[in-house]
Amino acid sequence: MKVLVIGTGAVGSYFGFKLAQSGAEVSMLARSDYDHVRDHGIHLSTTEGDFHFQPKQVVRHAAELVDPESGAAIKPDYVMLCIKVVEGADRIGLLRDAVGPETAIVLVSNGIDVEREVAEAFPDNEIISGLAFIGVTRIAPGRIHHEAYGNLSLGSYPHGVSEKTRLLAEAYQAAGVKCVATDNIGTARWQKCVWNAAFNPVSVLCGLNTGDILAHQEAFIRTLMQEVCAIAAAVGHPLPETLVDKSIHSTLKMPPYKTSMLVDFEAGRPLETEAILGNAVRAGQEVGAAAPHLETVYALMKLKQAAAAKGG
Amino acid sequence: MKVLVIGTGAVGSYFGFKLAQSGAEVSMLARSDYDHVRDHGIHLSTTEGDFHFQPKQVVRHAAELVDPESGAAIKPDYVMLCIKVVEGADRIGLLRDAVGPETAIVLVSNGIDVEREVAEAFPDNEIISGLAFIGVTRIAPGRIHHEAYGNLSLGSYPHGVSEKTRLLAEAYQAAGVKCVATDNIGTARWQKCVWNAAFNPVSVLCGLNTGDILAHQEAFIRTLMQEVCAIAAAVGHPLPETLVDKSIHSTLKMPPYKTSMLVDFEAGRPLETEAILGNAVRAGQEVGAAAPHLETVYALMKLKQAAAAKGG
Repeated sequence: MKVLVIGTGAVGSYFGFKLAQSGAEVSMLARSDYDHVRDHGIHLSTTEGDFHFQPKQVVRHAAELVDPESGAAIKPDYVMLCIKVVEGADRIGLLRDAVGPETAIVLVSNGIDVEREVAEAFPDNEIISGLAFIGVTRIAPGRIHHEAYGNLSLGSYPHGVSEKTRLLAEAYQAAGVKCVATDNIGTARWQKCVWNAAFNPVSVLCGLNTGDILAHQEAFIRTLMQEVCAIAAAVGHPLPETLVDKSIHSTLKMPPYKTSMLVDFEAGRPLETEAILGNAVRAGQEVGAAAPHLETVYALMKLKQAAAAKGG
Repeated sequence: MKVLVIGTGAVGSYFGFKLAQSGAEVSMLARSDYDHVRDHGIHLSTTEGDFHFQPKQVVRHAAELVDPESGAAIKPDYVMLCIKVVEGADRIGLLRDAVGPETAIVLVSNGIDVEREVAEAFPDNEIISGLAFIGVTRIAPGRIHHEAYGNLSLGSYPHGVSEKTRLLAEAYQAAGVKCVATDNIGTARWQKCVWNAAFNPVSVLCGLNTGDILAHQEAFIRTLMQEVCAIAAAVGHPLPETLVDKSIHSTLKMPPYKTSMLVDFEAGRPLETEAILGNAVRAGQEVGAAAPHLETVYALMKLKQAAAAKGG
């Protein structure tokens, strides 16, 4: 199994490494971290110990992925895009030279409806949609710190489990990753969005961690989550009735923490606001599912980001 | 006409000075600025020139307001409370020793339903409710900078125009203040709240001035304003249908500026969130007028203030 992982951030590095552990031939496409990763590979400090991961090849552009002897272009069985879906991220451009006729495109990212643009650009390729549940951080170029979890959900887009999806999931399982192949990854995306669309933007708007937010405004967070559930149901992805309760309870059980979006905001990095919140709000508007609390949070996030862009 | 103005901030200083210009005998109660105002009076730089205002007496507590010869307590005809309605402001305590049986209490402040607490504490006194429309800033103790406007609306609480209200309005008019005595000050409060409840909290949550807010999210601001209008109508204060349009247009015509609440927030001062936004939301909830966008802004303001209190 030949794989190109695009993105040497925390998620790409960790799940590229795990796939290599399963015996796959894994190359990495690095952008800002290219020099370091080419020279030193990737160092991972994980809950199971420290590891060094030397990718098969490290490239800066997909066109550089060639057989070293013949110079012939390599088109991998899977190209796995592990970058955040943010403004300015040219996902199609990054994929263009990596994808051959038989290449399956694997999209590992948060958000709703993030596959459509890629599926439209590569109408003849299989799209596999993935969700990572993991606490992992890139602490420096080529240095990854893994703190908790490490689960992966994979499903063929828009639904089903293809042969290629099943084989990828089995490779991860062979490396000890709790990986499930799901018939309906769209529903899984909405399910994850319930937490993300509520906590991530609210944390950015007020600058508080999960524990403080719940201590002051648990009912408000529940309202936001319920609006996401209502939109999901209206667009054909009904979620379990107990989901909001369970999300709140599991968050209360964890130590309070800063959301990844607040961490990104404080670091001045672009945010996944559109993928997580904007797409959910628009999905609701298309089917007439009212979500006034989410819409308000979305409008305020746009203003907050306009202020940040202005240097405020 | 004997008057005690409580508060030597921008509004108290300006409208105390104007009343003195009309010939009234105006004393001032100063808190943090006491030493300076006692020794130097108040200097006003206004659109009509620079003025020095020496109050009849300057006191730190209302009990100090005594006839200098006889030592007898003076109970003024009007006690005018010109402080912001914020957490920790002990309005009843400030008024207690100032109020005699014939004293009318004048409340000049923003917000909805800010009279009730005072009316309940002084059930036998006349309450006059006031709204200032003025661009005026306290730039240092006893130093006031007046930039624009200078209008005052006065009305008896809960409605009507009493003899004392009429006399006070005439005193202001004699000093050149555009002062109107209105039969329904409650409606006037809701009308002013339409702008305040939308722009003030949103500016704090995103850190933008009025121009930037409208450039990015005019429709959202209109939605918030319409919710305030709907609540006002539901509690018996129907507002003109053209009000939202007019508020937007007049804001667009003015140079972009930081709201007073954003200025207060950045200076670490307490905010009028409850008086302006919380009371409006609660009034809506009491009569079942849905205002989900306002409720969301209110929940986020509570979180933002919790973060600020935590030192965030």
